[in-house]
Amino acid sequence: MSKPLRVAMIGYGFMGRAHSNAYKRLNDFFALEHRPVLQVACARNAEKAETFADTWGYSRVETDWRKVVEADDVDLIDICTPNDTHQEIAIAAAKAGKMIVCEKPLARTTAEAEPMVKAVEAAGVPNMVWFNYRRVPAISLAKQLMDEGRIGRVFHFRANFLQDWTISPDVPQGGAALWRLDVQAAGSGVTGDLLAHNIDTAMWLNGAITRVVARTETFVKERKHQLTGKKEPVGIDDACLFIAEFANGSLGLFESTRYARGHKALKTFEINGAEGSLAFNLEEMEYLDYFEYAQDSHVRGWRRIHVTNGEHPYMDRYWVPGLVVGYEHTFLNAIADFVKGLETGKSVQPDFRNALQTQKVCDAVLESARAGQWVATAVEL
Amino acid sequence: MSKPLRVAMIGYGFMGRAHSNAYKRLNDFFALEHRPVLQVACARNAEKAETFADTWGYSRVETDWRKVVEADDVDLIDICTPNDTHQEIAIAAAKAGKMIVCEKPLARTTAEAEPMVKAVEAAGVPNMVWFNYRRVPAISLAKQLMDEGRIGRVFHFRANFLQDWTISPDVPQGGAALWRLDVQAAGSGVTGDLLAHNIDTAMWLNGAITRVVARTETFVKERKHQLTGKKEPVGIDDACLFIAEFANGSLGLFESTRYARGHKALKTFEINGAEGSLAFNLEEMEYLDYFEYAQDSHVRGWRRIHVTNGEHPYMDRYWVPGLVVGYEHTFLNAIADFVKGLETGKSVQPDFRNALQTQKVCDAVLESARAGQWVATAVEL
Amino acid sequence: MSKPLRVAMIGYGFMGRAHSNAYKRLNDFFALEHRPVLQVACARNAEKAETFADTWGYSRVETDWRKVVEADDVDLIDICTPNDTHQEIAIAAAKAGKMIVCEKPLARTTAEAEPMVKAVEAAGVPNMVWFNYRRVPAISLAKQLMDEGRIGRVFHFRANFLQDWTISPDVPQGGAALWRLDVQAAGSGVTGDLLAHNIDTAMWLNGAITRVVARTETFVKERKHQLTGKKEPVGIDDACLFIAEFANGSLGLFESTRYARGHKALKTFEINGAEGSLAFNLEEMEYLDYFEYAQDSHVRGWRRIHVTNGEHPYMDRYWVPGLVVGYEHTFLNAIADFVKGLETGKSVQPDFRNALQTQKVCDAVLESARAGQWVATAVEL
Amino acid sequence: MSKPLRVAMIGYGFMGRAHSNAYKRLNDFFALEHRPVLQVACARNAEKAETFADTWGYSRVETDWRKVVEADDVDLIDICTPNDTHQEIAIAAAKAGKMIVCEKPLARTTAEAEPMVKAVEAAGVPNMVWFNYRRVPAISLAKQLMDEGRIGRVFHFRANFLQDWTISPDVPQGGAALWRLDVQAAGSGVTGDLLAHNIDTAMWLNGAITRVVARTETFVKERKHQLTGKKEPVGIDDACLFIAEFANGSLGLFESTRYARGHKALKTFEINGAEGSLAFNLEEMEYLDYFEYAQDSHVRGWRRIHVTNGEHPYMDRYWVPGLVVGYEHTFLNAIADFVKGLETGKSVQPDFRNALQTQKVCDAVLESARAGQWVATAVEL
Repeated sequence: MSKPLRVAMIGYGFMGRAHSNAYKRLNDFFALEHRPVLQVACARNAEKAETFADTWGYSRVETDWRKVVEADDVDLIDICTPNDTHQEIAIAAAKAGKMIVCEKPLARTTAEAEPMVKAVEAAGVPNMVWFNYRRVPAISLAKQLMDEGRIGRVFHFRANFLQDWTISPDVPQGGAALWRLDVQAAGSGVTGDLLAHNIDTAMWLNGAITRVVARTETFVKERKHQLTGKKEPVGIDDACLFIAEFANGSLGLFESTRYARGHKALKTFEINGAEGSLAFNLEEMEYLDYFEYAQDSHVRGWRRIHVTNGEHPYMDRYWVPGLVVGYEHTFLNAIADFVKGLETGKSVQPDFRNALQTQKVCDAVLESARAGQWVATAVEL
Repeated sequence: MSKPLRVAMIGYGFMGRAHSNAYKRLNDFFALEHRPVLQVACARNAEKAETFADTWGYSRVETDWRKVVEADDVDLIDICTPNDTHQEIAIAAAKAGKMIVCEKPLARTTAEAEPMVKAVEAAGVPNMVWFNYRRVPAISLAKQLMDEGRIGRVFHFRANFLQDWTISPDVPQGGAALWRLDVQAAGSGVTGDLLAHNIDTAMWLNGAITRVVARTETFVKERKHQLTGKKEPVGIDDACLFIAEFANGSLGLFESTRYARGHKALKTFEINGAEGSLAFNLEEMEYLDYFEYAQDSHVRGWRRIHVTNGEHPYMDRYWVPGLVVGYEHTFLNAIADFVKGLETGKSVQPDFRNALQTQKVCDAVLESARAGQWVATAVEL
Repeated sequence: MSKPLRVAMIGYGFMGRAHSNAYKRLNDFFALEHRPVLQVACARNAEKAETFADTWGYSRVETDWRKVVEADDVDLIDICTPNDTHQEIAIAAAKAGKMIVCEKPLARTTAEAEPMVKAVEAAGVPNMVWFNYRRVPAISLAKQLMDEGRIGRVFHFRANFLQDWTISPDVPQGGAALWRLDVQAAGSGVTGDLLAHNIDTAMWLNGAITRVVARTETFVKERKHQLTGKKEPVGIDDACLFIAEFANGSLGLFESTRYARGHKALKTFEINGAEGSLAFNLEEMEYLDYFEYAQDSHVRGWRRIHVTNGEHPYMDRYWVPGLVVGYEHTFLNAIADFVKGLETGKSVQPDFRNALQTQKVCDAVLESARAGQWVATAVEL
Repeated sequence: MSKPLRVAMIGYGFMGRAHSNAYKRLNDFFALEHRPVLQVACARNAEKAETFADTWGYSRVETDWRKVVEADDVDLIDICTPNDTHQEIAIAAAKAGKMIVCEKPLARTTAEAEPMVKAVEAAGVPNMVWFNYRRVPAISLAKQLMDEGRIGRVFHFRANFLQDWTISPDVPQGGAALWRLDVQAAGSGVTGDLLAHNIDTAMWLNGAITRVVARTETFVKERKHQLTGKKEPVGIDDACLFIAEFANGSLGLFESTRYARGHKALKTFEINGAEGSLAFNLEEMEYLDYFEYAQDSHVRGWRRIHVTNGEHPYMDRYWVPGLVVGYEHTFLNAIADFVKGLETGKSVQPDFRNALQTQKVCDAVLESARAGQWVATAVEL
């Protein structure tokens, strides 16, 4: 007996596609009672909503998200709009008793995010933030190896997220595909867009970040704004680097930029502990690198685990050993976990409250960069 | 205006899954008139057919493939059954005027394959063999670079396909999941299963193979047979190595085995020409390695092309630069090309005739191994 | 006509060996007028001096460095003793009119180093500091590619120096082989020992560092001291991380530790510019990785330059293309450049004055870590 | 008390340099009684002999090797001349009671090599062939891991030696630096020059090769001969590929060429056994790759052993963990083992008799290529 899970998608961009794909494929790979139904595609522009709905097979379209969150034929609201709209939609959806899955970052600021957490908790609705990289099988395996105690006392965590797509000053800011460069819509630049992912991974694996010192930079100071048609100051951070203290006494080093020529999506991390180390790189996401100290000394070495076997997280759902799955499967794995959570009554992570902690670190990072000094986070983990 | 393309899937194993997934996702990613409809799932075992149809969403099931090939509600027959059944199904389907897409290898032998070619050509039905690896974006890019003349006169082609899943003598042969170890069902071992892929890639990139000398080995001589329950001689080749001459004067070296500890699906190739070289490895399929001689001598080097940008084959259909797609997309790309072929009237490759040439090389390889001497192929390209 | 270059080696440890090897091999590989002569080996312990002299072939031994710097049969003083002795020896050697090559770091602090610079400049004696990694052929090639303008405007520089040899709290501090853990002898921990190398490379490639914010950590707070036999507080930094601003507007990120399990000598750097990027890793020092934007977009990729050909820096002196040289050749290349400097009258870099700039950055880093705030360097380049 | 080991070097080319370097450095790194003394440099051309002797420090020169082998002031004859001269020199040296270390291959053919073996055995003189790659620390470690039983029953051995320096038809043949392209001087092309190394490694690690089938090719049919000044047919094999049977039932695959664009000295091997696999690549010779099956299944992976620690073969003699040694150290390690053999009375391997076995495989390979059929070797191991 299958249960429909009627999805309303708000937004139709890159993430709208990635999530839609995940819903459509869920039951092909995961044995679950719930079957997502693509019910409503919502966008302010009716034509774009229609095209999107047509491509992915949504049953109907809306141009007003307020109608969507209150619609009777919808169970789940998926928020894929720019960051400046997350709060209003999420709070309304919570009040309407809908389940909510929200793109990351949760909001532009902690102040904006806190009422969202209160709203979902007050309403008691299932909620999740799409920090999809936790569901890269190799990263899930890293978490498993940490939980198995294979790394020991942690000394260091370092992580990058390097891209190169905004080096040209001719790239404009604002508007449909480029709202990530518009500080009003995005809240911040690489900090909220990219480092948020790294912070989420870091705190999942290594616990709370308590204090940071950061430096941001905007290399291109003015860009044409697509909404005004004029050159306007760039308000986002093009690059952000910070040093972090973790609650467990280890040190963190983080860097993100869109000015690292030769890197498209180089999300990396490395963690060094007394008993071993782990390293990951999103551009070759099928691997987890692992150094185990407890080996005969003459055969110690970094091993590349090809994370494609049935014993690896999620991989029993897909093909056969040695065959690679990709980026999109992280969303599929995430929604599978969310639905499993519905069916087992066990809340999936990261939920809004957990994602709020990442927001707090982002805020502290940006505050530190502005103030030029160390800033304590208010993370509660 | 979309046209339905009603698919009947014969077989429900690993390839049945991979193909079904491709049909279901085709229109999410490719702008095509035809929309695959999962019409019939066929398997001798009714229960398995039902389960498979239920998981993937086929409209109905059949247990007799003869009914399927003649059904009025079917446009396309997809043959995913063991190799010993390809011929009979394909010829019947061709006679019934159905389009046919057949898993590789086309048949167990050239003798078995030739009537299949005649049948589809006599019937004039669109046909394709699923040598899906041509549609790995990195391999398609290799073909493009060859066609651009970047490699120059070719001297060497070498290719491996290494696995390790049959090292244990406790792995049985025969039956549902293990027909690949049963010579009656499979025709051969690694030669037809794995080297056929390498030969297809090789001749696509480097032209006809004209002569071979081979050595095969069966390391585990007896295995329990799942159909009889008794230990029986193993008839397949566990490993196969051969030296090849290409029509263009270059030399080939091929090796496949299921006894290479540490490799799950290490399909590789490297091609060396006067002006450059190319190398590929399926376990990190997002990369193509390229050495270009026409660079300043102090900066010459092997470059790793991360084949994930919009300018790379097929990649404009998926996500954004830097994000990896995987194994399953090769099938999606293949069926997209097949459907484009229908819409443009341009026959997709490899069709049955082309796949027959690969079969001829496989036959020559096995004959050489038996005879212990060089054997000429009868390839016509 | 060859000229003897009579060397006095003060110190007999790891660096004493590395330098002695370089002197002995110089004329086998480089065509130079000067021929180093291993004249005096000096160590406080007569027996150790004898053993060292015997192994490497020094003509005589001394136990008092003061006699050595004033000896008539010595042209060049090589200072390989712990950091706390550099100043006194160097100033005395300069006053005695001797050429001086001093191990890095130049001294424990800028305050200690400045009189050394004044002394060698007042005396007008040739001088060099052994930042040998500039002479890794791959790093010299990086400098050449920078000078050729291949990288364009620089945005980012990041560098690590990761080791793992002091994780065990049972490693003692102080005494012969372990003075690097004794703050009195070493001045600092990884900052002076390891980051000094990275800072030297960074400023050579990317210009002056003007401002830093740093965090240091001492993970093991007490270690047995070999001189006292008692547990004593550890005064050095076990790890040091810092963010840097360069004068050219780019951002730097540096990390060093002896607690990164799985890394022995992972000195790395990566530099990202508008036109390209470069990356290096000492553990595979035969490679330089280079990303060149000015390539056809479908074949862009990171290339691994195997820096072993005759057109690469220093490599025409050694074997044939493809064959690797190692760590010790960096010293050989360095002394070759020093001697060439003598013969051409062109001062070799880094000399004492240049090395003083690296010292200033180290001091600023340590001051920042102590004060918990950004600190300006006083670098003059 | 040190004993002089007076060396006469016959030949002054690339190998003459590599060996001279090894003798000169031996006692700096290895604690041995014998101290090599560079006594005589011999070359037909007096001027070249003088230059060579001057660079490396040989005491005197000779132009007639016959005088050298009979000289009273010489203990050891090092044969670094082209292959066609090995036999005559070696037999004369043996008769004169000299120790002999001979460059590989031992001779041009088995027929030529056999009397050499008889001569040294009749004379009872210490002898070695410079298959230096056994002394790459990573390859020695591979041997150690094999001896520890870590690989189990072997199924496959594959090895390449790829270069690209003769692709241009303008490269001449014959004369000083290019005798390797002249069949008269060299005996064969890549088979004797490169594959001999791979065969030596293979039989050391995996036992006797018993049967082969091979294919050779000469891509450039005519080259200017430096001795005649005229275009003459090329008699050597530019490329050689062969399939091998080992006595232990495993299969071998070998390839060598000088037409593999992008590879300078890509000597590789990989060995696959039931319990593990090993892989090596000379261009990154500091690594040995190892796959160990006996690990928890979710953390199995190929590990890269950075063969630079004190517990690795030969590495306690050099620097500190993490620091790379290079090509030239293989000769140093080899001569150290030879001298240890003198001091312990234990004959070093490979001696002439052992190298004869490699010669037999080379002969069988070339015979197979000529005859176009399988050929049995006469290896006795």
